[in-house]
Amino acid sequence: MPVAPCIDLNSDLGESYGQWTMGDDAAILTLVSSANVACGFHAGSPAGIFETLRAALRLGVNVGAHVSYPDLVGFGRRNMDIASDELTADVVYQIGALQGLATAAGTRVRYVKPHGALYNTIAHDKRQAMAVIAGLRAVDASLSLVALAGSALIEWAQAAGVHTVAEAFADRAYHRDGTLVSRREPEAVIHDANEVAERVVRMIVDGGVMSIEGEFTAIHADSICVHGDSPSAVEIARQIRQRLDAEGIVVRGFKQGA
Amino acid sequence: MPVAPCIDLNSDLGESYGQWTMGDDAAILTLVSSANVACGFHAGSPAGIFETLRAALRLGVNVGAHVSYPDLVGFGRRNMDIASDELTADVVYQIGALQGLATAAGTRVRYVKPHGALYNTIAHDKRQAMAVIAGLRAVDASLSLVALAGSALIEWAQAAGVHTVAEAFADRAYHRDGTLVSRREPEAVIHDANEVAERVVRMIVDGGVMSIEGEFTAIHADSICVHGDSPSAVEIARQIRQRLDAEGIVVRGFKQGA
Amino acid sequence: MPVAPCIDLNSDLGESYGQWTMGDDAAILTLVSSANVACGFHAGSPAGIFETLRAALRLGVNVGAHVSYPDLVGFGRRNMDIASDELTADVVYQIGALQGLATAAGTRVRYVKPHGALYNTIAHDKRQAMAVIAGLRAVDASLSLVALAGSALIEWAQAAGVHTVAEAFADRAYHRDGTLVSRREPEAVIHDANEVAERVVRMIVDGGVMSIEGEFTAIHADSICVHGDSPSAVEIARQIRQRLDAEGIVVRGFKQGA
Amino acid sequence: MPVAPCIDLNSDLGESYGQWTMGDDAAILTLVSSANVACGFHAGSPAGIFETLRAALRLGVNVGAHVSYPDLVGFGRRNMDIASDELTADVVYQIGALQGLATAAGTRVRYVKPHGALYNTIAHDKRQAMAVIAGLRAVDASLSLVALAGSALIEWAQAAGVHTVAEAFADRAYHRDGTLVSRREPEAVIHDANEVAERVVRMIVDGGVMSIEGEFTAIHADSICVHGDSPSAVEIARQIRQRLDAEGIVVRGFKQGA
Repeated sequence: MPVAPCIDLNSDLGESYGQWTMGDDAAILTLVSSANVACGFHAGSPAGIFETLRAALRLGVNVGAHVSYPDLVGFGRRNMDIASDELTADVVYQIGALQGLATAAGTRVRYVKPHGALYNTIAHDKRQAMAVIAGLRAVDASLSLVALAGSALIEWAQAAGVHTVAEAFADRAYHRDGTLVSRREPEAVIHDANEVAERVVRMIVDGGVMSIEGEFTAIHADSICVHGDSPSAVEIARQIRQRLDAEGIVVRGFKQGA
Repeated sequence: MPVAPCIDLNSDLGESYGQWTMGDDAAILTLVSSANVACGFHAGSPAGIFETLRAALRLGVNVGAHVSYPDLVGFGRRNMDIASDELTADVVYQIGALQGLATAAGTRVRYVKPHGALYNTIAHDKRQAMAVIAGLRAVDASLSLVALAGSALIEWAQAAGVHTVAEAFADRAYHRDGTLVSRREPEAVIHDANEVAERVVRMIVDGGVMSIEGEFTAIHADSICVHGDSPSAVEIARQIRQRLDAEGIVVRGFKQGA
Repeated sequence: MPVAPCIDLNSDLGESYGQWTMGDDAAILTLVSSANVACGFHAGSPAGIFETLRAALRLGVNVGAHVSYPDLVGFGRRNMDIASDELTADVVYQIGALQGLATAAGTRVRYVKPHGALYNTIAHDKRQAMAVIAGLRAVDASLSLVALAGSALIEWAQAAGVHTVAEAFADRAYHRDGTLVSRREPEAVIHDANEVAERVVRMIVDGGVMSIEGEFTAIHADSICVHGDSPSAVEIARQIRQRLDAEGIVVRGFKQGA
Repeated sequence: MPVAPCIDLNSDLGESYGQWTMGDDAAILTLVSSANVACGFHAGSPAGIFETLRAALRLGVNVGAHVSYPDLVGFGRRNMDIASDELTADVVYQIGALQGLATAAGTRVRYVKPHGALYNTIAHDKRQAMAVIAGLRAVDASLSLVALAGSALIEWAQAAGVHTVAEAFADRAYHRDGTLVSRREPEAVIHDANEVAERVVRMIVDGGVMSIEGEFTAIHADSICVHGDSPSAVEIARQIRQRLDAEGIVVRGFKQGA
């Protein structure tokens, strides 16, 4: 009997802050298998994070620490030239804070996914990447690291003994060399829900997608990121999930290292 | 052979923030047995907290989470009318963050001591007290709670199954009913190092001190707080320690609950 | 020829923060005559505040500084026991920052309206009230102060030579003594748009409304606050405006002192 | 009768934050003619800023807005890749806030000096430089801009019609091309008070100093920056001032544009 293919879907959650809400965590948590939960540096206030963690527990969704530069007003989307020891300590602080809230909520933190500008920077900047890896290992070396599929970060993390999860983006166009098309390009983001769902299936079944140059590009994805920060984003996530169900592809949390 | 009397000395540490320094952590850590380490809400940035934790480990000093209202500019010294679920989550977040940094530093968090306005408020405000107790228990019910000797908080915490550590203040005047003389009164704080050291010895040997009304008042202290936020405070702490050594009183961390 | 009655409608605006949005400023600005613009302490980041100020200018809406306690995560809704000199300086800082952005946007700040917990506290707490009044006067003594109709704050401000604007709430129930029904009471907030609009007309035409005790209570209102922080709030504001237009009541900014 | 040479000495002040103090503003204000006052983004809380402004007024010291990236924990020393409209609004907000406090203190803001990483970046990064210049002009086009002597920023600001003040550093080594020796080099900072004072005199009398390559380099300085963030920095500032007095060089605020 053939084994059903499976995939992890992850989404950025817990990004409300005090009275400000962002995204529809309750809806997204019914669709994904991994929740990247904000830790307070780009978003997330403690009581709101706690609610998201409780909801993740109820729905059997795995939890990761969505660590960021300390930049609330910029939502962690601005590059910061931060010293390595400060970055390591910032990562440790955020993971620890989320672990505390996860314990209080009855769940636990399984992985770390850097957010926003930090995510993009450490895909290629070794100094900052090693500072993040050091922070992860210092708190709990069994945590997985979610990183851009094909990035140097994956190699650096593995060389440091960290279990990695290669991540692809459902709604982003790729070049034939497997890199993401810059958001500055008009065709960078795919908005059609059907097309996004189709690309997810192709990534899982074919192991890659058509690049904007018109050639197939292989993408090894352990997890696929879906967005939930707008009503249309939730709708796209819903269509992806329905399409995966229809194709017999099982959505479940990635496997952690031995 | 008689057992030497012993006492725990605690001090507020890790209260620098980024480029701003406060206190002489390195000096104080050679004098005390328990370090109340700031968690980022009233003071303490991650890299600085980490350094304090490393120094505490090297010197064998126990570590506690010095949790606060979220009020950096006010240093946690201003009362805030904060909702219970928010306060609980804030406490959990801070303990967790410090646990993360403590793990990274090779040590662990053994107790919680509320800071500043939160400390004073929950000594008598049951709603906020129960919110703090809930936060402590939700992260790790084996953590001790350092609370004002004689306060209602101690009863509430014990009733909730939390191990408590009754705290007295080396440099504060007491009323005959065991309450602290308000800082608004001129004689509230004792500045003479010899007198402060003498009062510490009296608390340990006699189980109390002379009140400002001129009568002896019993104070049951498991731990005595010494300050370290100024050169003269460090000097007073040094004299207390020398006096205790001379009296054969052992300074060591309080015992935790079974 | 009889002069048409007129009223000022004010609303809290500019309360987005970075990537987080709150309310529909563009819609509300077409309905009101005064915009209470957040100054960064409870809400409002500079670029977003600037956009709100530009929109207010385009639509001929007067601008006021919506000053707050420094409490972003609590949205300024939590009482803080803040020292008078700090509160005065905080108020000055916020007014100045908004003046700078208003100048850049081509408009100017005409009044000050305290926000949230600060608004409620200084309606009756003379120490904090005098600190806010001192801040206003220190920056620009010609600024008006929007204050709860019937509150002691109005007397204190007038005694200090500050022009006051008495404010009533369109959607709040009143007691017969003219005080607001506490939000903890179930009948505190009126949700029916028609009823809210009717009450606004009664305030203007009759000089008061029916209290929850069933007796008419006089309310002298120079300005009426309408909310805009949800789609239903915007809809209520729209109905109020339509009803006022139908009644021939002119909506325009309050008159400032000589 | 020959006119005495004169120079402006400026220093970074108002950099305390809440309970944390930095520098000895009272001492430095007796030695300099221009105070670059923090505006709350890298340092400076309103009540503390106000005190510094009052002291500057008493001592006849001119006041400038020391604007920064929004990075309190990093003290504004970390580069941030911030969008132009956000940077412009951040600059406007900070100038306005300081203007408000200056008005309350009885003085006024005469110039803008960018702080830390922002200072270094806009010396050569035209996009961010133009955003800062736009912010300055939007609030008050008569404000001067203090900028690194010899930098492109001076040209860009002048082309935009902004009066510029070229700044040199008393304690920094220069290359023969007039650029600063990087702080990463061991000889970047001069610590000997006599040598620093001598270099200041050379800059004023000879119009330049000896470079580390051993050749004279011309530096046109309208203002010289002295530090005051440590006891030794205050001592160096004192020696500079004594040496200038002995040489008959008048210390006074720079002249503003027509």
